[in-house]
Amino acid sequence: MRLKIFRFRHEGVIRHGVLKEENLFPVTGSIFEDFAVEDAPIPVGEVKLLAPVEPSKIVAVGRNYKDHAAELGNPLPTEPLLFLKPPTAVIGPQDTILYPKMSSRVDFEGELAVVIKKKAFMLEAGAPVDDYVLGYTCLNDVTARDLQEKDKQFTRAKSFDTFAAVGPCIVTGLDPSALEIKTFLNGKLRQSSNTRHLIFPVPTLIWFISNIMTLLPGDVISTGTPAGVGPMQPGDRVDVQIEGIGTLSNQVLKIS
Amino acid sequence: MRLKIFRFRHEGVIRHGVLKEENLFPVTGSIFEDFAVEDAPIPVGEVKLLAPVEPSKIVAVGRNYKDHAAELGNPLPTEPLLFLKPPTAVIGPQDTILYPKMSSRVDFEGELAVVIKKKAFMLEAGAPVDDYVLGYTCLNDVTARDLQEKDKQFTRAKSFDTFAAVGPCIVTGLDPSALEIKTFLNGKLRQSSNTRHLIFPVPTLIWFISNIMTLLPGDVISTGTPAGVGPMQPGDRVDVQIEGIGTLSNQVLKIS
Repeated sequence: MRLKIFRFRHEGVIRHGVLKEENLFPVTGSIFEDFAVEDAPIPVGEVKLLAPVEPSKIVAVGRNYKDHAAELGNPLPTEPLLFLKPPTAVIGPQDTILYPKMSSRVDFEGELAVVIKKKAFMLEAGAPVDDYVLGYTCLNDVTARDLQEKDKQFTRAKSFDTFAAVGPCIVTGLDPSALEIKTFLNGKLRQSSNTRHLIFPVPTLIWFISNIMTLLPGDVISTGTPAGVGPMQPGDRVDVQIEGIGTLSNQVLKIS
Repeated sequence: MRLKIFRFRHEGVIRHGVLKEENLFPVTGSIFEDFAVEDAPIPVGEVKLLAPVEPSKIVAVGRNYKDHAAELGNPLPTEPLLFLKPPTAVIGPQDTILYPKMSSRVDFEGELAVVIKKKAFMLEAGAPVDDYVLGYTCLNDVTARDLQEKDKQFTRAKSFDTFAAVGPCIVTGLDPSALEIKTFLNGKLRQSSNTRHLIFPVPTLIWFISNIMTLLPGDVISTGTPAGVGPMQPGDRVDVQIEGIGTLSNQVLKIS
């Protein structure tokens, strides 16, 4: 079933809720188990939306669209190229990306992200993965490109607080194999691709990663970004839009 | 005050405790706050020792001893070179390092690790860091050297389940600036250095990292490994020994 699961703060309490029209229906129980949906709606305009999940880890994939590998002058990987973003980088759909003092080139990278539903450990290639997936969301893998080039290792460049914008919601029952993905900077289209161009599609990523590190409920796999990455400036607004999910919109501000 | 804080399972319950002679005195309250120590001891032989901390992230530092950078043919970094190890990699002092099928060259890397006591966010260089540090422990930054060379990015090579052995305990009130650090493979000395040879010492690492990602209570900074890294084989035992802390000892086994 296709559900849009949001996480939000309302009257000081943080909850998950399912969106129907313009209302959120709070969830009772864990979103990773069988859960119930309450009858009393909360208008979406009355809540602060939060990142829909609190991952224990974010496993991200580099160079997973052919055109993006080419634009940065990198060879195509023969296996998924992994990196980690720390949980402290996570922000939600109404939060601000902070431009750090340490960088002078901060890029957007729009990505499809997988939210894990249940513990995945050493899955066999070819095994069905649907039971391990709660759903899909948008992720902006914000990257300090100058520091990435300096360090070669991706970690510093991709680990600043606020550098993993996630949301606006988790969509269940979605087929991730052919979704339009677009990123807009101040309303202008900058990235436009389709997840059918992923070099390593979602099931392959889950098989591969589960043979390295156990995936836990709420963990996030960010599947990589297509061509068109580019710099953001303080004051800019960046929107990551994925077919069937919606739009993750964040503003960039300079740390004073 | 110099305390040795262990974490352990006893009669099905997981607790922290302070070691005095051969007994553990259970802690009441959080080890990150003011805590009390109970009167009734538990003999250390009756417990299963666990990793002394459950980090939300492990921030590790590459090439932080001059002799190790040289042995792998790498230039010296001008700033700390960071990578992350996932929380799922953590094992304790009585657990087993699992040799993954995906690798045929798995190395030990003995390191001094810092355990963070309180939230550290954008500290100024030169600021005192003692209030942010709960104590110090040993960490074996297990690394699939063949995959590190293949990927260039360190993440896969250093993120397998069981690839962050931590312990045996957290020692408080320790000066980290000049501690002998040794690693033994099957009892033979393989790494021998002193933390005074760290290119970026502990305070510099805390200042630097806190300006990238907020450090939370229980987070771990692994400060880098000296020269002498080398491969382990299934059946081997590896001991990381640091002056004032003790010895972290783990066996290696092949995943069947």
